[in-house]
Amino acid sequence: MMHVVDLIKKKRDGNRLSHSELQFLVDGYVNGTIPDYQMAAWNMAVFFQGMEPEEITDLTLTMAKSGDMLDLSAINGMKIDKHSTGGVGDTTTLVVAPLVASFGVPVAKMSGRGLGHTGGTIDKLESIPGFKVDLKPEDFVNQVNDVGVSVVGQSGQLAPADKLLYSLRDVTATVESIPLIASSIMSKKIAAGADAFVLDVKTGSGAFMKNQQDAVKLAKTMVQIGLHSKRTTVAIITDMNQPLGRGIGNSLEIKEAILTLQGYGAPRLTELCIELAAIMIELAGITSKSERARELVKKNLMNKKALVKFSEMIEAQGGNPSVIDDLSLLPQASFRQDILATKTGYITEIDPMEVGITAMQLGAGRENRDTVIDLGVGLELKHQIGDFVNMGDTLATVYANDKRLLEDALARGASAFVLDMKNPPLLPLIYGKITAEDV
Amino acid sequence: MMHVVDLIKKKRDGNRLSHSELQFLVDGYVNGTIPDYQMAAWNMAVFFQGMEPEEITDLTLTMAKSGDMLDLSAINGMKIDKHSTGGVGDTTTLVVAPLVASFGVPVAKMSGRGLGHTGGTIDKLESIPGFKVDLKPEDFVNQVNDVGVSVVGQSGQLAPADKLLYSLRDVTATVESIPLIASSIMSKKIAAGADAFVLDVKTGSGAFMKNQQDAVKLAKTMVQIGLHSKRTTVAIITDMNQPLGRGIGNSLEIKEAILTLQGYGAPRLTELCIELAAIMIELAGITSKSERARELVKKNLMNKKALVKFSEMIEAQGGNPSVIDDLSLLPQASFRQDILATKTGYITEIDPMEVGITAMQLGAGRENRDTVIDLGVGLELKHQIGDFVNMGDTLATVYANDKRLLEDALARGASAFVLDMKNPPLLPLIYGKITAEDV
Repeated sequence: MMHVVDLIKKKRDGNRLSHSELQFLVDGYVNGTIPDYQMAAWNMAVFFQGMEPEEITDLTLTMAKSGDMLDLSAINGMKIDKHSTGGVGDTTTLVVAPLVASFGVPVAKMSGRGLGHTGGTIDKLESIPGFKVDLKPEDFVNQVNDVGVSVVGQSGQLAPADKLLYSLRDVTATVESIPLIASSIMSKKIAAGADAFVLDVKTGSGAFMKNQQDAVKLAKTMVQIGLHSKRTTVAIITDMNQPLGRGIGNSLEIKEAILTLQGYGAPRLTELCIELAAIMIELAGITSKSERARELVKKNLMNKKALVKFSEMIEAQGGNPSVIDDLSLLPQASFRQDILATKTGYITEIDPMEVGITAMQLGAGRENRDTVIDLGVGLELKHQIGDFVNMGDTLATVYANDKRLLEDALARGASAFVLDMKNPPLLPLIYGKITAEDV
Repeated sequence: MMHVVDLIKKKRDGNRLSHSELQFLVDGYVNGTIPDYQMAAWNMAVFFQGMEPEEITDLTLTMAKSGDMLDLSAINGMKIDKHSTGGVGDTTTLVVAPLVASFGVPVAKMSGRGLGHTGGTIDKLESIPGFKVDLKPEDFVNQVNDVGVSVVGQSGQLAPADKLLYSLRDVTATVESIPLIASSIMSKKIAAGADAFVLDVKTGSGAFMKNQQDAVKLAKTMVQIGLHSKRTTVAIITDMNQPLGRGIGNSLEIKEAILTLQGYGAPRLTELCIELAAIMIELAGITSKSERARELVKKNLMNKKALVKFSEMIEAQGGNPSVIDDLSLLPQASFRQDILATKTGYITEIDPMEVGITAMQLGAGRENRDTVIDLGVGLELKHQIGDFVNMGDTLATVYANDKRLLEDALARGASAFVLDMKNPPLLPLIYGKITAEDV
């Protein structure tokens, strides 16, 4: 007979829990026989004592199996999922999904909604007139087989244990635990049924992982879970010390995704999309050489094959594909006003957190789960860190549907920028790549 | 506006909580606005990060003030309370209280009931026919002023925050935290209204603190709380690697207290009673020299002044003082049987935990709060560690009211003894003394 208090003590004293002990804990928590306070104590013990790699995998799989496990076997070919730990101005999924699909690699992607300063792919897609994010499972599978790509909202009960645990961690100061973060992410990914994963782990002031060391640790932990659960997993560590793209806000990010697929994307966003897509097609076996994969990806971006795939996906999901040629079909804001440089110099900082919160407060994001979002509002950045600007130049444009919110956003948005006469050192976009060989 | 999650985070990250933050936490927990799960996470963070001395004092006083604070000012003279962290065969309170009172030092003592393998003074006192442990506060005060001593059960709501917190710690593996143990003990002591405290911190296999280092740490923490809250506190570290006295069980311990007050006590029990009483009368200002205090205490034990005081206390609380001259007036057991040595040799171990549990299972103690205890049952040890016995000698006598329980107790009781041909090293009874100068 297992006793929860013994399992808390075991972890508290730095010992590894067995598979059956973790199962007892997770099952008991989900079915309500283990109360919040015992789970909270256990989480805090994990915060301090950590978990061993196999132990994290056991926890992850137990959480994945706590609800529905999607079966994508009706989709032909290897299914590769992509995940980002969350950033500002990150619309990569909307570029990478059609880009990868343009090689005949099936992309069956479930995405989430935004919360806090980061946006969500599903919210963005709803900017496209008519676009349906809720497909029946069989329609989702059929679309991937027919068109090659589908991006939908989460259906079914994926990893309910994770949902419960995350809510508890949120109010008990146990969010910042790498084993718990890794198992949370990977349990949902595994439940969503893909065969392999490409993970974009952000680091920097706008990311959950503020420093690179923690980002690498998280990436390694997730790659290890992949290895132990027999799902090839590759992670890249990327910079989030400034917003990734120019658009921040739902329709503004759809606009940016379209521009990127047309070859006019922001350089850093474009670069990251190429890298992610290249890793994915390499995993799918299109080529075994990384450099060749990047070349192929660039080609399908330039020859618009990826753009055509995006158009096909929009049409298949009931959206109006004309948005691609006429961006004014996307939701627009009533007011737009520029944030101007108040002095001359190099842009040394664009605080992604401030930019994200500015967009959120304009109505583009959710302060809490019940917020109704405004698809037309947000910011568009005209520059990136390292650019030299003259006093009076436009730094960014604010799109708003409310005069007072516009004023607030102009002030808050301006405060995100720091200008200096000294050229700042440029941070790389991609800090490194973690594969099974590195763990 | 304070947020609980920030206070959990603060402690998790090793920072000190302010007085008002601790007050917010304790008040919120007592009035139900802070849920168990947040308190559980905070407790676990304390387990790992500890607390600073002033912080522990703040917590202790906040918990003490969460309920009734007894006012003993109507009792003339300095009120000194005594506390033991709990052991087996420890009937010191029943000897020390009248002993100290025999010097005119008022003893107004609230004691608890037993739980688990340790006995409670209040249960033991109920073995004396007619003895009332529930006095009205004014009767308690009057008795101390008239007779000089009273030992009663807890009245009023003393430190309800501690009661709640302890129940939570018990089921979340956060009992073993020195700041939490120290504040738990001291909050109840402070609420009970004494001016100074003498603490007996047990260490060894039958104690809560298994090793001496932890016992010293706990003692220092409590002496520090005393210092910061302006209540003189002295602690001694004493051995609990074997039961302290001969009797284990309620009436058997009353019998032993009486024998001790008559000068026939077990040597270790007698020695500890002398030490504790000497510290108490020194604190009360009877003498300023420790050696002199011990001499005085021994004198009042030998001349029966302490025994007379005990008799007066029994009478004042409605009990039959004739028990002192006729031990057969105490509850008796229907069955008694000896545990015999199965070989010849030195006694090298008498496991206090096993002895305590044997007595509990006979009915002398409580497995849980609802157990009804049997006052007549228990064990009487005939030897202590280091004694040489021949095969067939009596090691202990078991007193039972049930044949089956008797059989079980004979087996379990026997397993507590280890005999060997090699004379074991003798452990001291008192390892050290901690005063304000040591912290």
